[in-house]
Amino acid sequence: MSDLRITAIRGVGPVSEGDDLVALFLEALQAQHEELVHHDLIVVTSKVVAKSEGRVVEFDGTEEHKLALIEQEARRILRRRGALRITETHHGFINANAGVDLSNTADGTAVLLPKDPDRSARRFRADVRRRVGVNVAVVVTDTFGRAWREGVTDVAIGVAGLRPILDLRGTTDANGRVLEATEVAIVDEIAGAADLVLGKAQGTPFALVRGLDESYFGEGSIRDNVIRSANDDLFR
Amino acid sequence: MSDLRITAIRGVGPVSEGDDLVALFLEALQAQHEELVHHDLIVVTSKVVAKSEGRVVEFDGTEEHKLALIEQEARRILRRRGALRITETHHGFINANAGVDLSNTADGTAVLLPKDPDRSARRFRADVRRRVGVNVAVVVTDTFGRAWREGVTDVAIGVAGLRPILDLRGTTDANGRVLEATEVAIVDEIAGAADLVLGKAQGTPFALVRGLDESYFGEGSIRDNVIRSANDDLFR
Repeated sequence: MSDLRITAIRGVGPVSEGDDLVALFLEALQAQHEELVHHDLIVVTSKVVAKSEGRVVEFDGTEEHKLALIEQEARRILRRRGALRITETHHGFINANAGVDLSNTADGTAVLLPKDPDRSARRFRADVRRRVGVNVAVVVTDTFGRAWREGVTDVAIGVAGLRPILDLRGTTDANGRVLEATEVAIVDEIAGAADLVLGKAQGTPFALVRGLDESYFGEGSIRDNVIRSANDDLFR
Repeated sequence: MSDLRITAIRGVGPVSEGDDLVALFLEALQAQHEELVHHDLIVVTSKVVAKSEGRVVEFDGTEEHKLALIEQEARRILRRRGALRITETHHGFINANAGVDLSNTADGTAVLLPKDPDRSARRFRADVRRRVGVNVAVVVTDTFGRAWREGVTDVAIGVAGLRPILDLRGTTDANGRVLEATEVAIVDEIAGAADLVLGKAQGTPFALVRGLDESYFGEGSIRDNVIRSANDDLFR
């Protein structure tokens, strides 16, 4: 494994419904004199995906309306504290306020999560391949809180072209002993890594990740491989 | 912010009690023709910290003994399923089996978590500064599961020289609107990013992270800033 390099792709303006995200990405990439190569990975923040897909709704600024939007986006409310709701979204994500987003949005609007972020990632990937003939992986990210630990981190809500969970079961450790069950959520480690160069406020929706081990590339989705079913969950 | 680069530091042999970790790191770094610069960050996996600090105990290979070790390392058992225990350790970490580690250990032994990983990180950092005169940040990492999501990721259990949580509250978004409460656990994003180049089985205990924004450097600890108190926790 060689070095991993993570680069923010800048200079992307505001995104609206119908915008061609891949075109915006490729333009910004070219402006930075970067060219895609096989086994590159592109991180796209969910907000620009949602905006380009028209997941923007009117929002009157009231607490009441915010809670109504959360109820609409959640299939279950797990916890309530003050104005905070810990929700299970229709996708199956456990997050705060069902992903209803009131920052970096135009006045009088709220942004919802993409309807099917795995599909958004697959489309982005296919579109890149069609236009520049390169096989990349794509990860769509959003910012989630965690149980047990303070602070939020970026995690993956959609993926294409990457094995989201790397299964190391059956491989041996440095002493030749078989490793205990170890399934590494590399897709979330990639999402968090990209956030380190993206920040929250700069309007930089893309990162390029280069140097990932080739064994990481393959098939899978967040819905099938990363979301834990309520049955397997010890804390729901 | 420029590119972020993450490099595995290889060629470190087995670590035993009393070994000088910083010397091992600096030797391996030199062998890779790398030199530390101001605002570099060094990721150290907890297992070599634990081994060098003598946190290795005899283990007879039985389930019974494993559970006894877990009971000893935990101040509370949150959940049981089969042989799995979800525990709150004496540090306050919520993890599997209180961090009692049976992989990559010598036969007949188990490795426990470092007693005070923040202190381990501070010592490593001070020792680097003393020997090569460079101010680096240090993150000690371990592998934890998560609620809600499949797979494990590396997170930080100790830190020195870095602000573990970046507080973006009060900063404005791209539209000049004040961001909602956003405290980013950059220390965990860094831990996960490093795992992408370290893997689990290769005996590569160190990574060098270069290119972090200078605003990330400062003071803080995992104990005081990242561990969520049971009172603030909605799921304990």
